[in-house]
Formats: sequence, structure tokens, C-alpha cells
Amino acid sequence: MTDPATPYLRVDVGRLRDNIARTAAAAAAAGVALRPHAKTHKSADVARLQLEAGAVGLTVATVGEAEAFAEQGCTDLFVAYPLWLTDALADRLAALAGSGVRLAIGVDSLAGAEKAAALLAGSGVELVVEVDSGHHRSGIAPGLAGDVALAAGDLTVLGVFTFPGHSYSPDGRAAAARDEAVALAAGRASLGAAGLTDLVVSGGSTPSLEHADASVLTELRPGVYVFNDAQQWELGSAAPDQVALTAVATVVSHAGGRLVLDAGSKVLGADRASYATGFGRLLDHPDARIVQLSEHHAVVELPGTLPALGSRVLVVPNHCCTAANLADELWPTDGDAPWPVTARGRNT
Amino acid sequence: MTDPATPYLRVDVGRLRDNIARTAAAAAAAGVALRPHAKTHKSADVARLQLEAGAVGLTVATVGEAEAFAEQGCTDLFVAYPLWLTDALADRLAALAGSGVRLAIGVDSLAGAEKAAALLAGSGVELVVEVDSGHHRSGIAPGLAGDVALAAGDLTVLGVFTFPGHSYSPDGRAAAARDEAVALAAGRASLGAAGLTDLVVSGGSTPSLEHADASVLTELRPGVYVFNDAQQWELGSAAPDQVALTAVATVVSHAGGRLVLDAGSKVLGADRASYATGFGRLLDHPDARIVQLSEHHAVVELPGTLPALGSRVLVVPNHCCTAANLADELWPTDGDAPWPVTARGRNT
Repeated sequence: MTDPATPYLRVDVGRLRDNIARTAAAAAAAGVALRPHAKTHKSADVARLQLEAGAVGLTVATVGEAEAFAEQGCTDLFVAYPLWLTDALADRLAALAGSGVRLAIGVDSLAGAEKAAALLAGSGVELVVEVDSGHHRSGIAPGLAGDVALAAGDLTVLGVFTFPGHSYSPDGRAAAARDEAVALAAGRASLGAAGLTDLVVSGGSTPSLEHADASVLTELRPGVYVFNDAQQWELGSAAPDQVALTAVATVVSHAGGRLVLDAGSKVLGADRASYATGFGRLLDHPDARIVQLSEHHAVVELPGTLPALGSRVLVVPNHCCTAANLADELWPTDGDAPWPVTARGRNT
Repeated sequence: MTDPATPYLRVDVGRLRDNIARTAAAAAAAGVALRPHAKTHKSADVARLQLEAGAVGLTVATVGEAEAFAEQGCTDLFVAYPLWLTDALADRLAALAGSGVRLAIGVDSLAGAEKAAALLAGSGVELVVEVDSGHHRSGIAPGLAGDVALAAGDLTVLGVFTFPGHSYSPDGRAAAARDEAVALAAGRASLGAAGLTDLVVSGGSTPSLEHADASVLTELRPGVYVFNDAQQWELGSAAPDQVALTAVATVVSHAGGRLVLDAGSKVLGADRASYATGFGRLLDHPDARIVQLSEHHAVVELPGTLPALGSRVLVVPNHCCTAANLADELWPTDGDAPWPVTARGRNT
């Protein structure tokens, strides 16, 4: 590969392919469909590898991401988000569905379902009801999923989904997967009582993935697994040698006897979960900790001899999704041309 | 103004102009030059207002930002960063200086100065020595500034600069300004002992701005003051009615009896300082707190009646610099066309 100016994001393509293949194989063995969340990478090149490995379609977070991936040829998209529809958003969704994309969106309230029924009638856009499984973000109580479906009028309701985001806890990964299964089963039962059959039952997060209950779930939507990051490393859901995305940074200073790198929060993102040991990790220096992060500086404490001024190090962002969204391109290790971050900034 | 899809960044132009005028007047009254840090807004439109109000030039953090603002007509730029020069970076800097831009860069080590002397000889690029005033990020000990200057060979060393970033502390703003003055005075003395005269003495951060010592400093480089943000609000260095940048967000859910907004960390940034009361504030609901932030969700606890589903609220990001860098455009309240974020993502 060429040698761009630092800081830049580097994709280890061998590890990327391994992550995709391993997760695809596990889903296939469990008899569960895989619909990876493309908000992690926002890259048509990465999405292509996932679809080639058997993914049934992509998950996205916004209508803009759906449009971006549809433009790149993806024909099966789920906006896993309780969109509050406006006329303009409904028009964009209808245009996508009218172009031949199989398109579903999330809904988590009766009011949202009524709005969708009014604005999306005849568009072909389908709904999936979001239930809360313990993360307490969006999502209705599972027992009310059927009421939401009934409020959706003539729209097709495909099933139920959740995001067990409380799996982002060192001791909570398996428990979150159990909560996920319980909530999804209850949501499925509520939809069944409302007369719906043949349901999609969709869950998944990277930390809970290995614990997902294939007796309940029909579909998994992990995102981060494709790259992994310092959060997964520190949660124990990925090993350092499964980290495929790093920021290449230059040592610009040894001020105060510490390492100062030119990759800051505008490259790595400022995410720092309560369990994080710092603002990211150094891939080849597991004992190092990023103790201070500014927009263009990472200050690293590191036992022993510091890497030389001007040398380059690989920084593992805490959260790969926010890091990828900050970059216009990703540099693959197996080629000279960067991969565009196709859907970067497509937040609406 | 037009009514874009949410989430988007909105600039209250009246407040923006007030912030620019007030700070310009204060600097003029103190007899100190103002060189605003353009990393905050990355916008040629905002920079133009600052320069029209008397700013002597712009501060930037990267060579890419310098190139972006030079393309927009700015002729006096300071890269306030201890760049570690490569041949490629030196060529870009020389090209900028050769195009008629007055260009200076930071340096904080003898090795960095020697590298600059070797790669920038004859380019016209000038140096400013960075000293640490207590933030403990980059910057050499003030007493060694003269040694750095002597290592810079034939290059012109303009003076000394620091960033008193430890001013980001509710009780530490005035103390950080005192530290800044002490460190800069010592750095100036060290340069003086090395034979340098007529020195630039440059400091400034938004929280310490009102306490800056005009008997020592000749130049101020605040960035955030132009927009302000939840950090300044909570530090006490800006009032809510001085906040000029907000994210316009839609209420998409009332799940769990809380407000769920469609502006998450990919719009607001994930910055959360130790003193922050949440992940941002709601401009018109001072009692609200953003208690949970995902990429596309902000979960808000709010006493009393929740704003209706589908209504819009103004979110004040914790850190306006990272929020602006996430957006491709800013929507001014006084016009129909958005302002491009000219230097977005120019990290190298």
C-alpha cells in the first residue's frame, strides 16, 4: 500500500476477511440470518465482502445511509431506527422502495405506527417493531408490540427487533443476550396474539453475539465485529489480533516523558465508556494507555523506552463506528487505492 | 432559512457576530492581537467574519487546515502544533509559504527544530516554540525554549506559545491563566537569552480568556468563543444566550418516559469532560440532561411534560469543535444556503 500522511485509518484486510468469515459461519451454523449493521464501516467495499459471505442484507441507522448503500447496489435494507416520519422522509423512503429495494424501518410507538400508516400506505415500505430488552434507549415494552402492529394499518409488519446495548459491560454480555431472547420472545408472542405469523425476530450486538439465543432469534445485526475496537478488546469479546481497523499515528513529541501522537479525537472519536482504561489502545503496546485526548493529540503513558520521535504506531480506537465516520477514506493493506467511506456523515 | 431534515447544525448568526465582536473588542482594549483558532469552525464564512472584525490571522491545527484556509484567501496562518516534519509535509508547507501566505508552525523539541532546520531552510516558513504551561500535553519546559530556537539554524523563530488547557476546570480558569503568563514569560526570557528580540508571546483558551495577562501576552488564540458550547456553559465562561451553535434534533420516541432525540454522537461528538453534567444540554430546557448517548440517539431526562413526538429541540454539544467537524455544512439563521465546513476532516 502507499504511505499516506498520518493520521489515517488502516484496514488490515486479512483480519477483516477473517472477522467476516468467522461470524458468517457462526450464524450459518446456528441457522440465523446475518444482517450486519453498516453504520460501523459506512463502506461499500466492506459491505460487498459481507454480502458475498452470505449476509441477507444490511442494517443501517438512517435514511441517508440506506440511500447511500442502495446507490451502491444493495437491494435489501433495514433502517433499524424508530424514524419519526415527515412528508419529506416518507417520500425518500417510498422512492427507495419504488426503485426495487426491499426496505423496512423501525417503529417503537403507536403514534409512530399511525404516522407510518398515513404516510407510507402503498409505498411497499415495511415495518419492524422495536422493543426494549434492557438497554433502555428506544423500543416499546415487548408486550405492547402487537398494539403497535395493529396501529400500522395496512402496512406489512415483518416482526420484532431489539438492540441489547447493555451488553457493553464486562460482566453483562451473557445476561444481555438472555434479556434479548426474553424480550424478543415476548414481542413475538404479542405480535402473534395480534394475528401476525412468520415473523422476523432480530437482535444482536457484537459483545452479546456469542451468547445469542438461536432458538428465539431469526436474524442478527452486529456491526462492530467486522473491525473490532478497544471496547471489544477490553470487554473480552475480541482479541487484539482480531482488530482490523487502526489509526496510523506519528510520534510528534516526547513532552513530559510521554508519547504524544498526532491522532486525536477528530480521528479516533472521543468515546470513553465507563469500563474503558483510556481513550483507545496501542495495538503493538498492550501496556500503553492513552491518558489524555485532545482533537489532535493523544498523550500516551508507556512503560520502558518510548518509540522514537517520527516513528509510527497503530492506535486502536475505543469505538470503530465513530472513528470510521470521521474519515473520508480507509486505507486497505492489500491495495494502493483507499476505500471511500461511502456513507460518511449521512445522518439524516 | 430553509428547514433541513434533522439532525443538522444551526448557527445563530446574531449570537455569532456578538461573540466575535465582543472578543475582538476585548482584545483590542487590552492591546493584544487576536488570532482565532479556526479548528473550532473550519468554516471560511466564519473565518471571514473574524478577520473582518480585526483578527490578525488564523490559527490552525494541521497543514491540511492551513491549505484549506489559504485556498479561501487567508494570508496569515499559524499551525499551532508541534509538527513532526516529513519531506512531504515540508514540501506542502514550502508551497504554502511560496504562494504568499505568512506561515508559522509550532516546535517543541530540539530534534523537531533540527528537523525543521534541515527540511524548511529557505522556505520562508517560520517557527514558534511551544512551552508547557501546566496542561501537560505537548510543549517543552519554558526554560528550554532558547535551546530549541538555537537548534533551528537559519529559520526565523518568532516567539513562544502555549495552550493553557487546564483552564477546562470549573475552579481552575483564573489559575490556568496565571500559569500561562508565568510559562510564557519564562519562555520569552529564555528566547531573549538566546538573543531573540521583538517576540510573539501567544496564549489563550476560551475558559481562561477573561483572565489572560495582557502584560505578558501579545497574542490570543481562542477557538470555542465563536460558538460556545455546553462545556463553556458549565464552566461558567459563557452564558446560554451566548451559545451560537446548536444541533436541531427531532423527538423520535418517548420510550421509558424519557425524550429520545435523533442527534447522537455522530452529530454532537462523544466528548464528556469530568465536570460535564451529561452529553450536552438542551438550549431551551436548562433542567434537561442527556443521560445516554449512542451514535443516533440522545436519551434525555427532563422534568415535567415532555416535548411532543415529532417536535424539534436545540441541543448544545458539549464541545463545538468536534461537532462542527462531523458536519459537512452549517445552517445559518439568516440565509437559505448552508455554509460548507470548508476544512472538515482535514486532519493531515
